[in-house]
Amino acid sequence: MRALTAPQLTEDALIASLRDALGRPPRALRVGIGDDAAVWKTPGSHLTVLTTDMLVDGVHFRSHATSPEDLGVKSLAVNLSDIAAMGARPAVAVIALGITEEVDADWLRRLYRGMASLANSSQCAIAGGDVVRAPVLTIGVTIAGHVRPSRLRVRSGAKPGDVIAVTGSLGRAAAGLRVLDRQLADALESGDRATVCDAYLRPTPRLREGAFLGGSTAVHAMMDISDGLSTDVGRMAFASGVDAVVDIRLLTLDPAVRAAAKLTGDDALRLTFDGGDDYELLIAIRRRSFTQVARGLHGRCGTALRAIGAFEKGSGAVWSVDDSGRRPLPPRGYDHLSQRA
Amino acid sequence: MRALTAPQLTEDALIASLRDALGRPPRALRVGIGDDAAVWKTPGSHLTVLTTDMLVDGVHFRSHATSPEDLGVKSLAVNLSDIAAMGARPAVAVIALGITEEVDADWLRRLYRGMASLANSSQCAIAGGDVVRAPVLTIGVTIAGHVRPSRLRVRSGAKPGDVIAVTGSLGRAAAGLRVLDRQLADALESGDRATVCDAYLRPTPRLREGAFLGGSTAVHAMMDISDGLSTDVGRMAFASGVDAVVDIRLLTLDPAVRAAAKLTGDDALRLTFDGGDDYELLIAIRRRSFTQVARGLHGRCGTALRAIGAFEKGSGAVWSVDDSGRRPLPPRGYDHLSQRA
Repeated sequence: MRALTAPQLTEDALIASLRDALGRPPRALRVGIGDDAAVWKTPGSHLTVLTTDMLVDGVHFRSHATSPEDLGVKSLAVNLSDIAAMGARPAVAVIALGITEEVDADWLRRLYRGMASLANSSQCAIAGGDVVRAPVLTIGVTIAGHVRPSRLRVRSGAKPGDVIAVTGSLGRAAAGLRVLDRQLADALESGDRATVCDAYLRPTPRLREGAFLGGSTAVHAMMDISDGLSTDVGRMAFASGVDAVVDIRLLTLDPAVRAAAKLTGDDALRLTFDGGDDYELLIAIRRRSFTQVARGLHGRCGTALRAIGAFEKGSGAVWSVDDSGRRPLPPRGYDHLSQRA
Repeated sequence: MRALTAPQLTEDALIASLRDALGRPPRALRVGIGDDAAVWKTPGSHLTVLTTDMLVDGVHFRSHATSPEDLGVKSLAVNLSDIAAMGARPAVAVIALGITEEVDADWLRRLYRGMASLANSSQCAIAGGDVVRAPVLTIGVTIAGHVRPSRLRVRSGAKPGDVIAVTGSLGRAAAGLRVLDRQLADALESGDRATVCDAYLRPTPRLREGAFLGGSTAVHAMMDISDGLSTDVGRMAFASGVDAVVDIRLLTLDPAVRAAAKLTGDDALRLTFDGGDDYELLIAIRRRSFTQVARGLHGRCGTALRAIGAFEKGSGAVWSVDDSGRRPLPPRGYDHLSQRA
């Protein structure tokens, strides 16, 4: 095939090229790339779930500091994370791309290959989209998924007495961003480097975990932690009409986050509390079921579930508690508009 | 409520404000704005249809030359047009907004009010989205809809012998853009001015027409004309593996397009052939059924269906024909990458 470079790039040629990069569409898809819309059958017993994200160069990623493959993975992952947080399974993704004059067809094919690798392993079809000119690289990802009504979880179901629990480790992506920004990655031990940099560059959406947790009646509320724990736990508390009390003594600091923070001069606890881009799941779970669910999650997915506090009667306030007592925990995570990160 | 202006704009406050602007969500929506994803039930007998578009300030619209309400209407309309072109009905929209520092909460509420007005009249719920910072105003609209399998129409179904037909009038939006760009609107007679400017600023998606045409077994293929007839008829021909022959003698020039073209010094026929942003429907229809379907469409929706040529055996070529004979018709419509408009 003729190599497409920016000057010759036309929309129809590009779409044909990207279709090649994505490989054969799954059979469940009735209509895929190249028509006015994607078409598929939602299973009759399921609800449809839909979520959209926009990622902008210089705001959500740095195109000069990431490979197109990683950027493809990340832009799909942040969206799949929202699907996971509903207890749902992904089905179909559509991609809207705003590309600059500097982007050539080879770069786009590599971006799509990154997307396709995560889409395939997530059983999600990339089924079309839109490619337009923009003054800055902009990636809009929208994913539709399915969930049985009984497995749907929202963020507003937390009850007083519920345990606040999180999957995996927090702060890794924020640590990775700081290490990469300061070009200190080479100074980290290779295991720690991979842990924090991969968490930032190509996060893993907690799809299997979300589906497992949605299957437990003990899980009352679920959301993903995309903007930092201190911000997102407040959102769950507010939506549920309860207060959240995070026990700092229960917040295990990840060893790789500690190592990275030492290197960059950051506070590891702040990265853990406020760091965005984690894409772990935050859940409210019935106290007496916590141990059983945590054991089940670890057995099924190999993923740790950690209790980090409790919800109590209230109206959306967030507190931290340690040996010195209780104090308000301000939302210091990522705000997409004030860009306070 | 406290007036939100840009410096105080936080994501959570903005989402609360926009939720107010949109009014009560429809009951069919299980989960709307404010969670990780929107959730609803697709009717068991239907297919789900999904389409996404990205609109960028300076490329697809000019924020200084449109009201936020009109921009809201237009950004939703271009997407609803794709739903209409599949023979489907819209159900749920999610909006991803990239906003600059200049955008304040009042402007955003007006944008959402414009979206809400068209969404409500189209029975489409605006169910959430994403708001981020961007260096240029960017609007990503994704709409999911439903269609019975028998009513689904794609662009690849045209057969040799089918009539090429279009709804409504072509070239109005392109004429409107030229009139507005050259600030000549006041020099047009008011009826013509409204016709061409409205077509560009707040197009009407052909939802009722698409649903009606999808219900006819004589309609073999359907798509919307968003990038200009000469480009889009070639796409249908190519997807269907047929040639398209457009008869220039059948292309009625819209009187308002004529008047506008005279004013701006443009060629009215070129605007009709190549002008983008029309959002009319292009269909391939069994020859012997054309008159009956056209009469039915006019009776049901008050919309004209015009035969402008025929498909014939071939491999995706497009021809124009008039008294002087047949010649190739190059795709001179809007290409989103080469920006040749």
